[in-house]
Amino acid sequence: MSLRAALRTKRCVSGLLSQLPSCSSHVRPRAPAVLVSQQRNNSTSPKIKVDFDQSTGVAIMQMQSPPVNSLSLDFLTELCISVEKLEMDKSCRGLIITSSQPKVFSAGLDIMEMYGKSPERCGEFWKAVQEMWLKIYGSNMVTIAAINGSSPAGGCLMAMTCDYRIMADNPRYSIGLNETQLGIVAPFWFKDTMTNTVGHRTTEMALELGLLYSSSEALKIGLVDQLVPEDQVLTTATETMTKWLAIPDHARQLSKSMMRKPTIDKLTSNREADIKNFVSFITKDSIQKSLRMYLEMLKKRRG
Amino acid sequence: MSLRAALRTKRCVSGLLSQLPSCSSHVRPRAPAVLVSQQRNNSTSPKIKVDFDQSTGVAIMQMQSPPVNSLSLDFLTELCISVEKLEMDKSCRGLIITSSQPKVFSAGLDIMEMYGKSPERCGEFWKAVQEMWLKIYGSNMVTIAAINGSSPAGGCLMAMTCDYRIMADNPRYSIGLNETQLGIVAPFWFKDTMTNTVGHRTTEMALELGLLYSSSEALKIGLVDQLVPEDQVLTTATETMTKWLAIPDHARQLSKSMMRKPTIDKLTSNREADIKNFVSFITKDSIQKSLRMYLEMLKKRRG
Amino acid sequence: MSLRAALRTKRCVSGLLSQLPSCSSHVRPRAPAVLVSQQRNNSTSPKIKVDFDQSTGVAIMQMQSPPVNSLSLDFLTELCISVEKLEMDKSCRGLIITSSQPKVFSAGLDIMEMYGKSPERCGEFWKAVQEMWLKIYGSNMVTIAAINGSSPAGGCLMAMTCDYRIMADNPRYSIGLNETQLGIVAPFWFKDTMTNTVGHRTTEMALELGLLYSSSEALKIGLVDQLVPEDQVLTTATETMTKWLAIPDHARQLSKSMMRKPTIDKLTSNREADIKNFVSFITKDSIQKSLRMYLEMLKKRRG
Repeated sequence: MSLRAALRTKRCVSGLLSQLPSCSSHVRPRAPAVLVSQQRNNSTSPKIKVDFDQSTGVAIMQMQSPPVNSLSLDFLTELCISVEKLEMDKSCRGLIITSSQPKVFSAGLDIMEMYGKSPERCGEFWKAVQEMWLKIYGSNMVTIAAINGSSPAGGCLMAMTCDYRIMADNPRYSIGLNETQLGIVAPFWFKDTMTNTVGHRTTEMALELGLLYSSSEALKIGLVDQLVPEDQVLTTATETMTKWLAIPDHARQLSKSMMRKPTIDKLTSNREADIKNFVSFITKDSIQKSLRMYLEMLKKRRG
Repeated sequence: MSLRAALRTKRCVSGLLSQLPSCSSHVRPRAPAVLVSQQRNNSTSPKIKVDFDQSTGVAIMQMQSPPVNSLSLDFLTELCISVEKLEMDKSCRGLIITSSQPKVFSAGLDIMEMYGKSPERCGEFWKAVQEMWLKIYGSNMVTIAAINGSSPAGGCLMAMTCDYRIMADNPRYSIGLNETQLGIVAPFWFKDTMTNTVGHRTTEMALELGLLYSSSEALKIGLVDQLVPEDQVLTTATETMTKWLAIPDHARQLSKSMMRKPTIDKLTSNREADIKNFVSFITKDSIQKSLRMYLEMLKKRRG
Repeated sequence: MSLRAALRTKRCVSGLLSQLPSCSSHVRPRAPAVLVSQQRNNSTSPKIKVDFDQSTGVAIMQMQSPPVNSLSLDFLTELCISVEKLEMDKSCRGLIITSSQPKVFSAGLDIMEMYGKSPERCGEFWKAVQEMWLKIYGSNMVTIAAINGSSPAGGCLMAMTCDYRIMADNPRYSIGLNETQLGIVAPFWFKDTMTNTVGHRTTEMALELGLLYSSSEALKIGLVDQLVPEDQVLTTATETMTKWLAIPDHARQLSKSMMRKPTIDKLTSNREADIKNFVSFITKDSIQKSLRMYLEMLKKRRG
């Protein structure tokens, strides 16, 4: 059994989420859950479940990759194909993204896609992360994140990429771009997306410290738009969608594009350079060593 | 009697302002009053009244084009001439813009300037809208909007173009760029002005949904700076002006220019393209059809 | 005794801070303390005191140039040398900037460096102001401003240039870029720094009016991050530093650079033009006359 295979069976996000002692509300490096991976017992079953209601024009996309919907290459590929299908179906006007896993929306990028992998494979993975962001951030559909659990790092990015964010009102759930805590750096388009959502200063401090925010803190800084009791997240998303769909599609889409196009163009015109940059960063000995230590810590913790 | 003439005598903003059922505070497509027009019984009487007090250096500009100060080509031309005169008068240092019409500041662009008109005329109209924005947003005078009534769409733009906004504390009055609700799209410089005022995320949601905000909501998001009882709007504007005029003009003007010049330059260097873009959009069959349906709905409602 | 020498012995900031009548909270031109100078009785003693604790990796920099830590060429030169030394010392990871003077953090640029000076000298001075900003805003160290007193103009700039701002909770202390009140204009990189900190609209109004904010107002708009009782400013800064230093340096530095580099690049690529611009502005007869009148007013007031 390879190290990698051994690690696979050991990791889960619940350990991550309580790993660091909590700090003051200003500087709270709580949970470096940026990079996770997960048991892949069910690698052949679909990681994404889509229910499209033709009568309302709304699709509900459930992320169902146990235990924590980590964003692996397989997961992202499946997600992108699903979004693209809906995007091309003119009868689909709204997309709600949520999780079928308990306590977590998505725990972010899969660490195993970055540890001990060839540069080619790392590049392929990063291209899929870009693709996910491009597809959702630029979608013509109304996109609502029904955040029914924690959503660190790549999970936070996915949520921010939607038009509207409804989060479960649970102080145990956190959300944020916490990459910095693991010694890695959010790329410029993660940064741009967050700046567009919560402004420059909040983003600066969030990224410097890799901050994770509780649901109520996230509401306060505008990282999410609304908190509701956990069992009402999906129904509220559906009700909100109805209101958004009352707006003429064409004008809404043009307005959205006007707001987001400059940010999208920055990545599309620098996509190859961004991949190169990621690959050269993540394959550095020092970074691989950090990832190995992190994985070993997780292993020991659950050993 | 032409359709247009028939419509002219029928439309008024009060109907518009209660047209859609109100929704939640998050998504509230209340009043698609973006495009209005008005009875022109008094087309030869001045639409703009200016009182300039030489002793204080402050001019009060009353918009008095019944019923709702809609921004027609005539109205905008008169307004621009008035502003330019004051701008060139070195003794005029401050400008307060308000409405003499009950319950409305300005109801925005006149729909009749966009419906069934030649491309040339549409272009002429749009140039006047640009001119109004350029003149006020770049004014060397201190400009204060005394918002004593509702101020949708172009009315909101005019208010945002000033240095400071005082609004009547009346929950029935609303303000916002609600173009999207009518199927049309705020141009990039409307968007830039709003982003400069309330930030990127608030603007994104406001434009996607065509949101109108009540006066207290507008204060909360920073769309207006101050609420006062309705009968104190003008006196508060006058008092505030005195404080602004205590600041050395030259330094204030340079500071203002430093903040606004990049946004102004974006339009001045794209003015012709922006006109072409508007004309090609507004003369589309689908858009003209939307406008006709809208006008017919108004006609029926008051028939 | 030259006019300049005479003035030197007369000026102090306490007079400045109560010079204008206070106004409403919206427009409050309280203290035009943008330009100060100070007695230089102890011109040979160090203006900057640095205590570097090798065991924690944290340096505390005390500004100790009586009476008000005004930013003279000598002061800035000494400060820049100190920061550079710490920056090059790999064992120094954090820098806390505070004042050893009572009631004032720093009162900003020294007026005597701008009045009656040769263009060459003015240029040299301005270059030092730029250098201070470049060194701190781009520092790889964690920088925390422990603002234990008023901090107008250049003092506010210095505070904004840090990663985190803790201010004494004292309503008598104010902070802000109040240059406009004296008839001078904050340069574009002061403006950019403020926009990055509190957003576009707040900056626009702050600069147009030269606003100074009380400590609680400053917290509300995000100009400072935290208020604590005056005697706990430094200890809180030290505790906060510990939390920031728990974050991996490299990732934090890269995140910081990603947020600040575009703003820094704007100045570095326009540095000479910015100096020329300042020199040509400050040596104008009208500006020199303003400064002379201001100095004479101070002189009379304390005569």
